[in-house]
Amino acid sequence: MSLTRTASTFAPPVMEARRWLDGVSHPADRPLLNVSQAAPVEPPPPQMLAAMAEIVLNDPEAHLYGPVLGLPDLRAEVASRWSAAYHGKLDQAQVAITSGCNQAFAAAIATLCAEGDEVIIPAPYYFNHVMWLDMSGVKTVPLAPGSGLIPDAEDAARLVTPRTRAIALVSPNNPGGVEYPADTLAAFRDLARVHGLALIVDETYRDFDSRTGAPHDLFSDPEWDDTLIQLYSFSKAYRLTGHRVGAIIASVERLAEVEKFLDTVTICPNQIGQRAALWGMRNLDDWLAGERQEILNRRKAIVDGFPKLAAKGWELLGCGAYFAYVKHPFDIPSDQLARNLVKEISVLCLPGTMFMPDEIEGGKSQLRIAFANIDSDGITDLFNRLASLTP
Amino acid sequence: MSLTRTASTFAPPVMEARRWLDGVSHPADRPLLNVSQAAPVEPPPPQMLAAMAEIVLNDPEAHLYGPVLGLPDLRAEVASRWSAAYHGKLDQAQVAITSGCNQAFAAAIATLCAEGDEVIIPAPYYFNHVMWLDMSGVKTVPLAPGSGLIPDAEDAARLVTPRTRAIALVSPNNPGGVEYPADTLAAFRDLARVHGLALIVDETYRDFDSRTGAPHDLFSDPEWDDTLIQLYSFSKAYRLTGHRVGAIIASVERLAEVEKFLDTVTICPNQIGQRAALWGMRNLDDWLAGERQEILNRRKAIVDGFPKLAAKGWELLGCGAYFAYVKHPFDIPSDQLARNLVKEISVLCLPGTMFMPDEIEGGKSQLRIAFANIDSDGITDLFNRLASLTP
Repeated sequence: MSLTRTASTFAPPVMEARRWLDGVSHPADRPLLNVSQAAPVEPPPPQMLAAMAEIVLNDPEAHLYGPVLGLPDLRAEVASRWSAAYHGKLDQAQVAITSGCNQAFAAAIATLCAEGDEVIIPAPYYFNHVMWLDMSGVKTVPLAPGSGLIPDAEDAARLVTPRTRAIALVSPNNPGGVEYPADTLAAFRDLARVHGLALIVDETYRDFDSRTGAPHDLFSDPEWDDTLIQLYSFSKAYRLTGHRVGAIIASVERLAEVEKFLDTVTICPNQIGQRAALWGMRNLDDWLAGERQEILNRRKAIVDGFPKLAAKGWELLGCGAYFAYVKHPFDIPSDQLARNLVKEISVLCLPGTMFMPDEIEGGKSQLRIAFANIDSDGITDLFNRLASLTP
Repeated sequence: MSLTRTASTFAPPVMEARRWLDGVSHPADRPLLNVSQAAPVEPPPPQMLAAMAEIVLNDPEAHLYGPVLGLPDLRAEVASRWSAAYHGKLDQAQVAITSGCNQAFAAAIATLCAEGDEVIIPAPYYFNHVMWLDMSGVKTVPLAPGSGLIPDAEDAARLVTPRTRAIALVSPNNPGGVEYPADTLAAFRDLARVHGLALIVDETYRDFDSRTGAPHDLFSDPEWDDTLIQLYSFSKAYRLTGHRVGAIIASVERLAEVEKFLDTVTICPNQIGQRAALWGMRNLDDWLAGERQEILNRRKAIVDGFPKLAAKGWELLGCGAYFAYVKHPFDIPSDQLARNLVKEISVLCLPGTMFMPDEIEGGKSQLRIAFANIDSDGITDLFNRLASLTP
């Protein structure tokens, strides 16, 4: 008897980590520093809340089923914004709205894979991607990290088999924090195209990229949709995590397949969240620019403060988006270390073992620090606590 | 090369039907009567809209990630209500909230099945169930309808194989409209239990059951959760279709598996919809009683008016929940007839072929009429239009 779909994968890591907090109390002068999750902890700005309340009260359509592939105006807004931002040509029909970006990934895989197929993903990886591949009967083929956590398309080429259907990248990267260079993305696109694979690029953190201008030129290829599937989340930019709104950008033909999956799994994305996302895109550019700057400031505080940890043997492997990905100097595996950090210094972060399979070296010496929710004082505090540990 | 998950199933029938409207205009004195979809077309009542707006403005948590298995207060409310309504003992930990009831079904199947497994479902069936089974690599084993569209557990017993993992029932039934007797459900539970299968009972339309009291006694069995998985939707009772809130009631162990699926597919149900559902359960009992009565009145109008159609050779096979399921007297297959009805009498309804596989007789002579959105004048109008057709 084969394992059921859910028995084929592991328990959600974020919840496992949260259970490490059970029964642990923290001294009054050392409150818990939770750097485990990549999510805003504040509601959207007041002007957006007012707009949402108005929608609740006065837009009857906001309470009814809507199109499976999402609100037409939101699809159009994404297409038009993206066309400008990426110097490409995207049509509204190439954009679908999903109930969060995890669902966008799930839908993409459902259109690409059958039982026993393979998908290549660079390690360290986003564990929910692996969970979905497991539950879909798809083999995750991990790609060892290249220099500076940047994956190398030539390494990936050696992993392609007749069962490979896609390569999935996340940039800016979760958990690694690195921003993949445009050349890297182009090389992966070329590799995917030559083998008839899809290239999935999850740009959940695109609004916090430190680079100005288009982060890649994939959309400026007029034939982009024969290979590229881009994923996006409205959760981070507009603090809409609780509203579950994401997007998938792909060919019209693929979205017709996506429609089957979404119809069966949720019928449609929720209407309030979609309208909030649309309002945000139309009204919050300046506000979002400030949010981005604050994240970039925190990133700078991490980089500037890191020498204090480096002196103790720590290494900063990557830093960007919401994350610092670090190498610790201790002789114990990261999953044990992460548990100890809760008790010893009241810090909750996720161990590299959650982002790396055993067969690829490194996970045991790595930790992910999601710094988006701590300000520069918090970062100083975090670094002081980590520096206080002795090997 | 195997078919991808989505290529393994058909396009969403509701959307296919909607395309039949394209390019068809209706005379001013004969507007379109759309009886194709089972969904409220009005927003929730004003007092609920006010409560939702208040939540949007003043509950910061309503905008953030919440627990994967749903809002604890909502889980507790369902457990306590259900315990009273079904004369059983349900704990909050046996209830999880999902992004709509389709997702509850998808999650249940993910915990039960592997590639190549089988699930028995009575025909006529809810097509989204078949679509999910197809995409999961699970074989749908259709059970031919018993007398009065009530499935017979003895018939089902003959379909059980070593690959069978579950039997899935919908009561009150979509599309058939019939309310399964308590004895039927108990017989299916016994059959499932003896073979170590799960019995999934989708009670999306429970709030519109014409019977008073508990519709079955499955929950009064102290061991119910070794076999039973119940599914529910808040969409119909509280007009929350656009908010995507459903529930799955099962053992704590199964919900730990459900958690993996939900975490990966949507992370959590959206927060506003969950809070609206909770507010509805706590404040709208009287209002909901009125809604139920209105649906029962419409059902009565269907039954009372049917002789006019019966005289023309039509047959009422089932009537309840939001649906009348009818047999038409014409020599053409129902999918062709349904298209003709749009053009000839401006009526959109779904053909039996969408609810029945070819190998089970009947689908070609059947139509589903979703009457929840037409009042008794509308029902008279519908019947007059149908009666005007000549074989």
